[in-house]
Amino acid sequence: MSGSIYGKIFQLSTFGESHGVAIGGVIDGVPSNFQLDLNAIQMELDRRKPGQSSIVTQRKESDTVQFLSGIMDGKTLGTPIGFIIKNEDQRSRDYDHNDSAFRPSHADFTYEKKYGIRDHRGGGRSSARETACRVVAGAIAKQILKSIGIDFSTYVDQVGELRLSSDDFYSNESIESNPVRCPNDSMASQMEELIREVRKNGDTIGGCVRCVVKNVPVGLGEPVFDKLHAELGKAMFSINAVKGVEFGAGFDAVGMKGSEHNDIFNSDGSTQTNYSGGIQGGISNGMPINFRVAFKPVATIMKNQATINALGEEVDISGKGRHDPCVVPRAVPIVEAMAAIVLLDFYLRSKANQL
Amino acid sequence: MSGSIYGKIFQLSTFGESHGVAIGGVIDGVPSNFQLDLNAIQMELDRRKPGQSSIVTQRKESDTVQFLSGIMDGKTLGTPIGFIIKNEDQRSRDYDHNDSAFRPSHADFTYEKKYGIRDHRGGGRSSARETACRVVAGAIAKQILKSIGIDFSTYVDQVGELRLSSDDFYSNESIESNPVRCPNDSMASQMEELIREVRKNGDTIGGCVRCVVKNVPVGLGEPVFDKLHAELGKAMFSINAVKGVEFGAGFDAVGMKGSEHNDIFNSDGSTQTNYSGGIQGGISNGMPINFRVAFKPVATIMKNQATINALGEEVDISGKGRHDPCVVPRAVPIVEAMAAIVLLDFYLRSKANQL
Amino acid sequence: MSGSIYGKIFQLSTFGESHGVAIGGVIDGVPSNFQLDLNAIQMELDRRKPGQSSIVTQRKESDTVQFLSGIMDGKTLGTPIGFIIKNEDQRSRDYDHNDSAFRPSHADFTYEKKYGIRDHRGGGRSSARETACRVVAGAIAKQILKSIGIDFSTYVDQVGELRLSSDDFYSNESIESNPVRCPNDSMASQMEELIREVRKNGDTIGGCVRCVVKNVPVGLGEPVFDKLHAELGKAMFSINAVKGVEFGAGFDAVGMKGSEHNDIFNSDGSTQTNYSGGIQGGISNGMPINFRVAFKPVATIMKNQATINALGEEVDISGKGRHDPCVVPRAVPIVEAMAAIVLLDFYLRSKANQL
Amino acid sequence: MSGSIYGKIFQLSTFGESHGVAIGGVIDGVPSNFQLDLNAIQMELDRRKPGQSSIVTQRKESDTVQFLSGIMDGKTLGTPIGFIIKNEDQRSRDYDHNDSAFRPSHADFTYEKKYGIRDHRGGGRSSARETACRVVAGAIAKQILKSIGIDFSTYVDQVGELRLSSDDFYSNESIESNPVRCPNDSMASQMEELIREVRKNGDTIGGCVRCVVKNVPVGLGEPVFDKLHAELGKAMFSINAVKGVEFGAGFDAVGMKGSEHNDIFNSDGSTQTNYSGGIQGGISNGMPINFRVAFKPVATIMKNQATINALGEEVDISGKGRHDPCVVPRAVPIVEAMAAIVLLDFYLRSKANQL
Repeated sequence: MSGSIYGKIFQLSTFGESHGVAIGGVIDGVPSNFQLDLNAIQMELDRRKPGQSSIVTQRKESDTVQFLSGIMDGKTLGTPIGFIIKNEDQRSRDYDHNDSAFRPSHADFTYEKKYGIRDHRGGGRSSARETACRVVAGAIAKQILKSIGIDFSTYVDQVGELRLSSDDFYSNESIESNPVRCPNDSMASQMEELIREVRKNGDTIGGCVRCVVKNVPVGLGEPVFDKLHAELGKAMFSINAVKGVEFGAGFDAVGMKGSEHNDIFNSDGSTQTNYSGGIQGGISNGMPINFRVAFKPVATIMKNQATINALGEEVDISGKGRHDPCVVPRAVPIVEAMAAIVLLDFYLRSKANQL
Repeated sequence: MSGSIYGKIFQLSTFGESHGVAIGGVIDGVPSNFQLDLNAIQMELDRRKPGQSSIVTQRKESDTVQFLSGIMDGKTLGTPIGFIIKNEDQRSRDYDHNDSAFRPSHADFTYEKKYGIRDHRGGGRSSARETACRVVAGAIAKQILKSIGIDFSTYVDQVGELRLSSDDFYSNESIESNPVRCPNDSMASQMEELIREVRKNGDTIGGCVRCVVKNVPVGLGEPVFDKLHAELGKAMFSINAVKGVEFGAGFDAVGMKGSEHNDIFNSDGSTQTNYSGGIQGGISNGMPINFRVAFKPVATIMKNQATINALGEEVDISGKGRHDPCVVPRAVPIVEAMAAIVLLDFYLRSKANQL
Repeated sequence: MSGSIYGKIFQLSTFGESHGVAIGGVIDGVPSNFQLDLNAIQMELDRRKPGQSSIVTQRKESDTVQFLSGIMDGKTLGTPIGFIIKNEDQRSRDYDHNDSAFRPSHADFTYEKKYGIRDHRGGGRSSARETACRVVAGAIAKQILKSIGIDFSTYVDQVGELRLSSDDFYSNESIESNPVRCPNDSMASQMEELIREVRKNGDTIGGCVRCVVKNVPVGLGEPVFDKLHAELGKAMFSINAVKGVEFGAGFDAVGMKGSEHNDIFNSDGSTQTNYSGGIQGGISNGMPINFRVAFKPVATIMKNQATINALGEEVDISGKGRHDPCVVPRAVPIVEAMAAIVLLDFYLRSKANQL
Repeated sequence: MSGSIYGKIFQLSTFGESHGVAIGGVIDGVPSNFQLDLNAIQMELDRRKPGQSSIVTQRKESDTVQFLSGIMDGKTLGTPIGFIIKNEDQRSRDYDHNDSAFRPSHADFTYEKKYGIRDHRGGGRSSARETACRVVAGAIAKQILKSIGIDFSTYVDQVGELRLSSDDFYSNESIESNPVRCPNDSMASQMEELIREVRKNGDTIGGCVRCVVKNVPVGLGEPVFDKLHAELGKAMFSINAVKGVEFGAGFDAVGMKGSEHNDIFNSDGSTQTNYSGGIQGGISNGMPINFRVAFKPVATIMKNQATINALGEEVDISGKGRHDPCVVPRAVPIVEAMAAIVLLDFYLRSKANQL
């Protein structure tokens, strides 16, 4: 109930501060006797890890996952999968200056007030480093979902005002073909240029990630409260820096008429349009699930900012650590991981719908 | 786990189909020995009920709540509060034509496929009628929150393309001064006119509701997964017809620089701006919580639509029931109720943060 | 989290004080499209209700269950089943004398201290009347379990020092052939006589109920914490007046050697003995599940007792209500109901063990 | 929901097979800013570990806990505490002979059937080695409970037919004064002798552990389902080899009259007797909580036993590993740990009972 456990059947429990000994987690509820590809899990972590390209933070972490239980000869035992990822490049000196200063639009202030204590080294628990554990669980979930046909296409569709006008299902090859993870080369180039420019100014910029999921069986989602998009929405908002989520037509639906927005059925139960984003009444309808996630600009900037410290004194800070000028390229595998965790959980939950 | 129970400490369990005997619920975890104003609860229901103005559905329901337990002489006993709301005006004949036809962009198809059976009378469980139970629980939550100073301002800020450019905290009087529940009279008139016009054409239109919450204490929210806005997001997406949710600057944050978006602290811990919407790192920071919820146009329209039935045969349907041309005026109390339920739950959860 | 919701998939939420308007509940997670026998549910309630024989309390309650949702033409919709049971014979005057006095070995004192308020009329929420709601849910669970072959034999095996020396699976006919619900006629007669004698003296007596469950599939139970017998144990201890629970050989296992106690396998996976009570490592092994539940003597006696009131003043009370001299005959359907609720929940949970 | 997470606020998630890389866990919901004594945690593990005396298994494990997160300078951060305990002395050769044979009264058969796969090395997940993780969490819980005055006295009160006739609160010194952990020297000597004799014969014997908890505040426990003793009962039954649990007078209450069993109040709210074991209506009443836990004889014996293997073939096995002749001396810290986990969880839950 304290917030570090997620899911009902496929349950992820994570732990770890960004500059402690290690981060890690426990995954309970993994279906047994499933053959995992352990290398593929590490590859997902590599997509999230720092230092992978010149437009992301240069903090050095190998982000190597070590599995401690729940797997024998690559097969799931049905028992909890425990794992750790060591924190290698801690450089906590970079963060000493934050000892008492509250960084603007970071969680320093709220953690201090909530808990009466905080690990000031680089964000501690509030650091996005924690999301590496989600990528591990998500990679496992994706493999299981893949075995029943479900496929993901997750990509950057906006950086600043630069927006890709498409919600297609793109191949992983096209997404991974550039460091921005935008499947349109020309748009990707512009985005990359914008990110470099912003970084040169010591600043940061926001962005959006779109996720499209194919071949989701009809029937996932548990109304009325645990609607499929409600839980996906929660999962997305639980990712650092997310400020908005929309499904299907999303905010654009507001300006539409019912006669425009309604998705008319084909005789096979599919629909001619998909303004609903693959979900009706909180239950998947077999059409691609489609949603978009808005990330604010990274709060750590390389400019001086006035702030206060724990004593209420006014102090100046300037970012000295190694941070991302734009979070969305590295957010792609995180969004996909959380989507996979939610979908697998609902898939397993749906098994009890009928005898 | 089947989706009809919400919350961790303040827990709402709802039941009921739109055209069954009754809808109702159980609220467990209500703090004991709290004096309730039972009339105020009924008044919240009256804000949601059909037939309250000429721009909403004319279905007739008194929506009278009857409490069965958990309250003695108006005081909470700390035991579960059970309640029912009878379904009076059932007119299920209006719905006979839907027996086998799947209404486009409704949940008929998905319920049928998920459960292998469905109550076809007016949506059954998928009807927004269920949200009356949320309003009951929300009204109780609001009274308890009010006793610790927390106040809500929830209003319509968009209908179609007509948008109020403000996120102020408006009084309930100004919000209730017109049937649209938009606190700006001039904008409200335009919105009302648009709704009438849309209805005249047998069509429907989308809209947005904004919710602003004042005096939320610092420290509510349980990272990393149960971030305050993550749970608020889930709660909003669990409301019928919601397609998008954004906090603070929301999707507009995407186009901003970090140096613009960061909320700089005042010496008292408040911030000069509130692009974050009152939440940092998933924890309330003492600034007003501020979010916006996008509703799609109501799916039931008074025009002919081609669709299919359970046999996969192509059939035509036209809406004959009594439905809302625009859902947002009646959605205002529902959004507020769900926000109150979430905030009270997190308030109670926060009591265990420190010894 | 406040204790009135039970189960993970098949979830029962109950409400109601003994002398309020009604008691009732919501059952979420009922598999859809299952044909219920509604009369059989009422018959289970009749087995628990007061006034059914001369050796139980003569309080008059018809205990008629009214279903409000979740069922259409006798079939489950997969949506929550809401139900109420009205409190008819309230006679709260009988209880006026308890207004402030704390009845010894009742929950008056603890409720008052925990909640700062209590419904003093006949126990309020702490009354065993609440268990009628469990019997409704249990009757539904039993019908579903019956459809997959699972059968229950629950009976009184001890009253005072009179003990049936057998843990056989008896037919419902033999169990229901006498008011004690002990399947051995001679023993039943002695027990009945003892109960009458105890009642004549204004006193009460304890007893034990045994439950034997046949045809439970191998694999139910979720170690390490949610072992099948751990959850069954919790369910039993949640019934009013239960002071002890034991599985298989139970406390007698303490005096046994491993070489005596071990259940040796037959070649088909069954075992030659069943000291384990049908569960190994927290998982059902296919042998009959077998446990015994100890009930203390009813706390309300027809003798004068010294006690205190809410002011700490010493006062005398004597029981004036209509109470049971021995609780076990009416406890039989409650024990069976809770066992069925637990087993169905684990059956549904087991569906997610493998893909 | 898969059974490896325990608790509602103070939540323990454990992982690990007995012969894998490591066992470990995550504790979420630990109150923040609490100064821990890390050495005291290790000392509790030492009480449980193998090889500590001549009457327990000689398997060699240092059982050193390594904390990975959630603690800074010995203080709790309010974030999850992750920890691991490496498996050092694996000697899996001892277990090779069990590859396919199902050991009688072990969980080999049920794990194999439930999951379709099992780690056959020494019990894997079903091994009592997992309980070391519970001792870590319990040691933390005990320190927090100690700070609010709550004290534990847990000891062996029965081995075979040798039973201590007392339910007093004994000092830790008297309990730890002998390897049996029975606080009566003379009884302890007899028990030790019995254990040695049983072991000499290659056999094992059962036993009981009693737990007495002082200074528990009035008001812990959440009726109706999460009664304090219901959850304690579940916690006890979740410990390997437990077959029975009783509170206060327990099974002896069955033979008592109400007039004997009722606990009469003193004017300060305490009671003259404590047959209820410190709990009324599922809520602690301020008197010592008192319960007794029955353990079956260890299933692994050093005698030949006929059994079957996964192919259904009849095979012979004989225990070759290093096992305990009687589990109760090492079970004492486990019982105490689980009791502490439950009590702290309910203490934290009770904070939300009133505003």
